[in-house]
Amino acid sequence: MCRWLAYFGNEIRPEALLYDAKYSLVEQSRQGRLTGNLPNADGFGLGWYGDRDVPGLYRSVAPAWGDANLRELARQIRSPLFLAHVRAATGTPVEQTNCHPFRHGRWLFVHNGFIDGYARVRRDLVLEVAPDFFGGIQGTTDSELMFHLALTFGLEDEPLAALERMAWFIEATGRRHGVCEPLQMTVGVSDGERVYAARYASGPVVNSLFVSADACAVRALYPDEEQFQQFSDETRVIVSEPLGDLPGIWHEVAADSALVVQPGDDEHVAFTPRPPTH
Amino acid sequence: MCRWLAYFGNEIRPEALLYDAKYSLVEQSRQGRLTGNLPNADGFGLGWYGDRDVPGLYRSVAPAWGDANLRELARQIRSPLFLAHVRAATGTPVEQTNCHPFRHGRWLFVHNGFIDGYARVRRDLVLEVAPDFFGGIQGTTDSELMFHLALTFGLEDEPLAALERMAWFIEATGRRHGVCEPLQMTVGVSDGERVYAARYASGPVVNSLFVSADACAVRALYPDEEQFQQFSDETRVIVSEPLGDLPGIWHEVAADSALVVQPGDDEHVAFTPRPPTH
Amino acid sequence: MCRWLAYFGNEIRPEALLYDAKYSLVEQSRQGRLTGNLPNADGFGLGWYGDRDVPGLYRSVAPAWGDANLRELARQIRSPLFLAHVRAATGTPVEQTNCHPFRHGRWLFVHNGFIDGYARVRRDLVLEVAPDFFGGIQGTTDSELMFHLALTFGLEDEPLAALERMAWFIEATGRRHGVCEPLQMTVGVSDGERVYAARYASGPVVNSLFVSADACAVRALYPDEEQFQQFSDETRVIVSEPLGDLPGIWHEVAADSALVVQPGDDEHVAFTPRPPTH
Amino acid sequence: MCRWLAYFGNEIRPEALLYDAKYSLVEQSRQGRLTGNLPNADGFGLGWYGDRDVPGLYRSVAPAWGDANLRELARQIRSPLFLAHVRAATGTPVEQTNCHPFRHGRWLFVHNGFIDGYARVRRDLVLEVAPDFFGGIQGTTDSELMFHLALTFGLEDEPLAALERMAWFIEATGRRHGVCEPLQMTVGVSDGERVYAARYASGPVVNSLFVSADACAVRALYPDEEQFQQFSDETRVIVSEPLGDLPGIWHEVAADSALVVQPGDDEHVAFTPRPPTH
Repeated sequence: MCRWLAYFGNEIRPEALLYDAKYSLVEQSRQGRLTGNLPNADGFGLGWYGDRDVPGLYRSVAPAWGDANLRELARQIRSPLFLAHVRAATGTPVEQTNCHPFRHGRWLFVHNGFIDGYARVRRDLVLEVAPDFFGGIQGTTDSELMFHLALTFGLEDEPLAALERMAWFIEATGRRHGVCEPLQMTVGVSDGERVYAARYASGPVVNSLFVSADACAVRALYPDEEQFQQFSDETRVIVSEPLGDLPGIWHEVAADSALVVQPGDDEHVAFTPRPPTH
Repeated sequence: MCRWLAYFGNEIRPEALLYDAKYSLVEQSRQGRLTGNLPNADGFGLGWYGDRDVPGLYRSVAPAWGDANLRELARQIRSPLFLAHVRAATGTPVEQTNCHPFRHGRWLFVHNGFIDGYARVRRDLVLEVAPDFFGGIQGTTDSELMFHLALTFGLEDEPLAALERMAWFIEATGRRHGVCEPLQMTVGVSDGERVYAARYASGPVVNSLFVSADACAVRALYPDEEQFQQFSDETRVIVSEPLGDLPGIWHEVAADSALVVQPGDDEHVAFTPRPPTH
Repeated sequence: MCRWLAYFGNEIRPEALLYDAKYSLVEQSRQGRLTGNLPNADGFGLGWYGDRDVPGLYRSVAPAWGDANLRELARQIRSPLFLAHVRAATGTPVEQTNCHPFRHGRWLFVHNGFIDGYARVRRDLVLEVAPDFFGGIQGTTDSELMFHLALTFGLEDEPLAALERMAWFIEATGRRHGVCEPLQMTVGVSDGERVYAARYASGPVVNSLFVSADACAVRALYPDEEQFQQFSDETRVIVSEPLGDLPGIWHEVAADSALVVQPGDDEHVAFTPRPPTH
Repeated sequence: MCRWLAYFGNEIRPEALLYDAKYSLVEQSRQGRLTGNLPNADGFGLGWYGDRDVPGLYRSVAPAWGDANLRELARQIRSPLFLAHVRAATGTPVEQTNCHPFRHGRWLFVHNGFIDGYARVRRDLVLEVAPDFFGGIQGTTDSELMFHLALTFGLEDEPLAALERMAWFIEATGRRHGVCEPLQMTVGVSDGERVYAARYASGPVVNSLFVSADACAVRALYPDEEQFQQFSDETRVIVSEPLGDLPGIWHEVAADSALVVQPGDDEHVAFTPRPPTH
C-alpha cells in the first residue's frame, strides 16, 4: 500500500503536513499505523500549484525520510494546493518516472492501490490509451496507466465520470483475463482549482481514505492547538491515513464514493464504474 | 551518440577494457575523440556471461567514471563474453531501466543511435511487439523497443535476419509518419555463444563501429605490448570507438554490414532491412 | 539499529543468505522481527572475498530490497567469505561512503549500533586517528570512525585487542563529554582468513548477535532441509537477527564477548574494553 | 574545473540563467567553452534566498542537464539572490554532501578550484577548524573544508578578510608539506544581502571569473534583446564562464582581486592572503 495526501486551502508550507504533523506523511512512510509495517520507501513525490500555469513536481526514488532536498523544498515553498505521495512498489521498478504524482498539463494524479494481474492486462490497457495521451507515459506503473486511461476517457472535462470509466474499463479487461478483483484504488486528482478523490475496490477490502473535518469545527474543538490556527475555513486535507490521533478531525471517506473539494461547499457522491462512451 | 563495446575471447576481467586501455570505454564516456565533446554520462551498463544460465547485469544512472561499484565489479569478476554501454540520452529519461544492455533470457542487446521521430512512431512500434515479449519492456527507450521488436521478429532463432526485419519495420513505420531517415544504429547482440553486430543507418551518415584484428596478428605487430599478451587467438573486441591509437589493430565495420564473432571463423555479411514474414 | 551478516565457509552465492533464506537479510531490511518495525532502508553493502588481493565492495544508498544490481551480483558471484549490511541511519547522511562494509586493504568492517553523543565527541575521536589511516576516512559515520580508530590501535595485528582499545577510547572520550553510555556495538571484522565478531555495549541493553551452530549438527537436525546441504562442516554464519525460525540453529553470542570464526576450532573469548598502549 | 554562478538583483526565476541563456550554466556543465571538454557532471547544487531565515538548498549527484527536479525547481521558484554550481570532482567522491553550495546559517559558499596535495594536508586543515564549526562538516571535499576554515577565521564578521586568512593558512600548510602551488580558487559567498567573490591562485594560472556589466548599460547596448529587460539596474551576475557571447556584457574579474556586489555601488578590492589573527 502506498500513502498519499492532498491539501486544499490557504497557502501553507508543505512541511506542516509532510514533517510537522504528529503522524506526518514522511513519518508514515517509515512507520505506518494502519497497515502492517512495510515501509513506503520506494520513492516519493510532491506536486504543488504555485504561480505558474503548470504545477511543480519533485520526485525521487529515495526513501522520503532521508531526502534532504524534500525537507528543503517543503520548508521553502508555499502553496494553496499540493499532493504528496510515498510509494511501496508492487512489482514495477523503483524509478523516478514511476513516482507519483503524475502530471498532464495542469493535472496531477496520485494513487494508492494496484491493478491485479497487471502483467497480464497491461498490453490491453496500453492499447486503449488514446494516441494523443500515449506519448505522455514516461514510466511503467499501473498507476500512471490509470491516469492516462482516465485522460483518454475525458478526465479534463468530467473528472469523476472519467475515473468511473477508467475503473470500469480496468475491471472489464481484468475479468476478461480471469482476474477476480481487478482494481484496488484510492485516487487523488487535481487541476489546481479542485481536488477530486475517489475510494473504490473491486472486492470487499478497500484501501483507507480520510478527509479532515471543517477547519472551523476543528479549531473550535481544539482552541489551544496552535497547529490548527494557520488553516483557513475552507481548508481540507485528504489522506490515506490520519496525520494525528486527536478525535473529531478525520472522517473516513466511504467506500464506493468520491469527493470534490472546492471553493464553497464540497461534494460527496457515489462512485460507480461505468462503461466509456466512445 | 552512445558508445558500446563487446568482448569475446578468453576469460578476462572487464577492467582491462573499461579502465586500463588507453582510451578505455569509461574514459571515452567522459571525453570521446570521434564525435564532438558531449559526454556519455546518462547511465551505463555491463552485462556479462558467467557460470549461470542468465548473464549478470549491472546498470546505473550515474556517469560511469564516478561509479565506485562499476570499478569494483570490473576488477573482481572474470568473463569470456561481456557487453558494456555508456549512454548519452536522446530524449528519454535517465533511468536504470533505460540503460543498456537490455536482457531477455540469455540474450543481451546494446545500441548506439536512435529512432528519428520516436515520439510520433512509438505507439505503432509498441503495438507490433508480440504479447509474449511485451511484458519484458521495463523502460521507455527506442533501444529497448528495438530489442523487443527484434525478439518479436525471431531474434532467438535468426539473429541477423530478425535485426533486418526490425530495421525494415522501423523504417516503414517512420516513413509512413513522414520521417525521412528513421533509423540510426549500431547494435550488439549476444546469446553468450556468439556476438552479432550490425552497422546501419537509413541515411548517409552512419555511426562508427570497429572490430579488433586477429589477436595473433596484433601480438606479432606489438610483441612488447604487455596488455595484448593476455588475449587468446580467438579474442575479438567490437567497439564504437577504438580503445587506443596503435595502427593495425582496429578495422572499421563497413556500413550496411553485419558481423558474427564466434568460435572458429567469424562472418561478415551484408545487412539489408527486409520485411518481417508474419 | 542496523543489521549485518558474515558468512564463513565453502564457496556459495550470497543470494542464499541475502534473498533465499526465510528471513533473509534483504527481507529483514524491509521488515525485521526483533526490533520494532523501523526499516533498514538507508543504504546497504556487500563485501566479498574473491580471487584478488582486495575484497570486492558493492554499496548503495537505495533500500536493499528494491536494488536490481544487488540481486544480480548476489546471484552471479561465489565467495567463501562475505559480509553484508543494511543500514538504518542514526544521524549521518544517507550516502554511499556511509554504507558498510568499510574497507582498508584486505580488511572489511561492519557495525550495528552507535556512538552516543557523536556530535559532541566526533572531533576528539577524529584527532586520535593516526595520520596514516586518516586519509582512508571517506564518509562521516561513527562506524567508519570506529574502524579507523581500531586500525590506529593495531587492528591488523591484534584484531580483538584493537577493538577493545577502540571501545575503551570511545567510552573514555564520551564520559569526558558527559555521555553516560557512550557505545553500543556489534561489530564484524575480517581479513579474508577469519571473521572476528564482538558484542558489547556501555549500558545494560546490548544489540543482538547470533552465530549458527555447527553445520554437521544442523544437517543432522534437519536432514530433509535441502538448503542446509550446500554448506561445508566449517561453515558459520554470524547475524544480527536469525535468518529463520527453526530451533537449534542459532546461538546467541553473549554480551561482552567476542568470537573468532576460523579454520579449525572457533574461539569464544571475553570482550573487555582496555586502554590503548601508545 | 567546476563552474559556478551567483545572481544578485530583482527577483527572477533561476531558469533564466540555468537554462534559458545561450551558454546557460546547465549547458556549460555538458559542454564548456573555456576549459577543454571535461564535463561538470559530478553533481550540482542551487542555493537560493527566499522568504525564510535560511536559504534553500537543492543538491544532487546527477549531471545537471538530466535532472528533472532541477528544471522544475528553477522554473517554479523566484529569488533575488541565488548561487548555483556544477561540479567536476577532483578526487573526492561524487556525493550529495560534496556538492556545492555549502551552507552555514544564512551563509552559502561555492568554489571552483582545488587544494593541491589535499590528501597530504587534509588532516592539518581539519584540525584547524574551530570545534564550533567542526560539526557542520558533512562531506569530504577540499571546498567544504575551505568554507569551514573561513568560518573559523571570521567569515561571518569580515568575509573578505576571512577568505584571505583561509587562503594564507592553506598556502602555509601546503608549503610546509612541500606543495608548490597549494591553492586554486574562485569563490562565491553570500549572506543573502551581498555577494562576495574572490579570484586567486598560488601560481600563475588562475581559474576564470567574470562579472556582468551594469544592467543599464547592457540594455542600452542591446535595446532589442528581450532577455535583458527583466533585470533591474542593480542586477549583477558573477560567473566562471560567460553565459553568452555578446560583446560588452562580461568583464573579467582580475586575478588576486575580490568583489562585493551589494545595494548601491559595488566594491572591487585586492585579494591578498594574510595570516589569521588568533
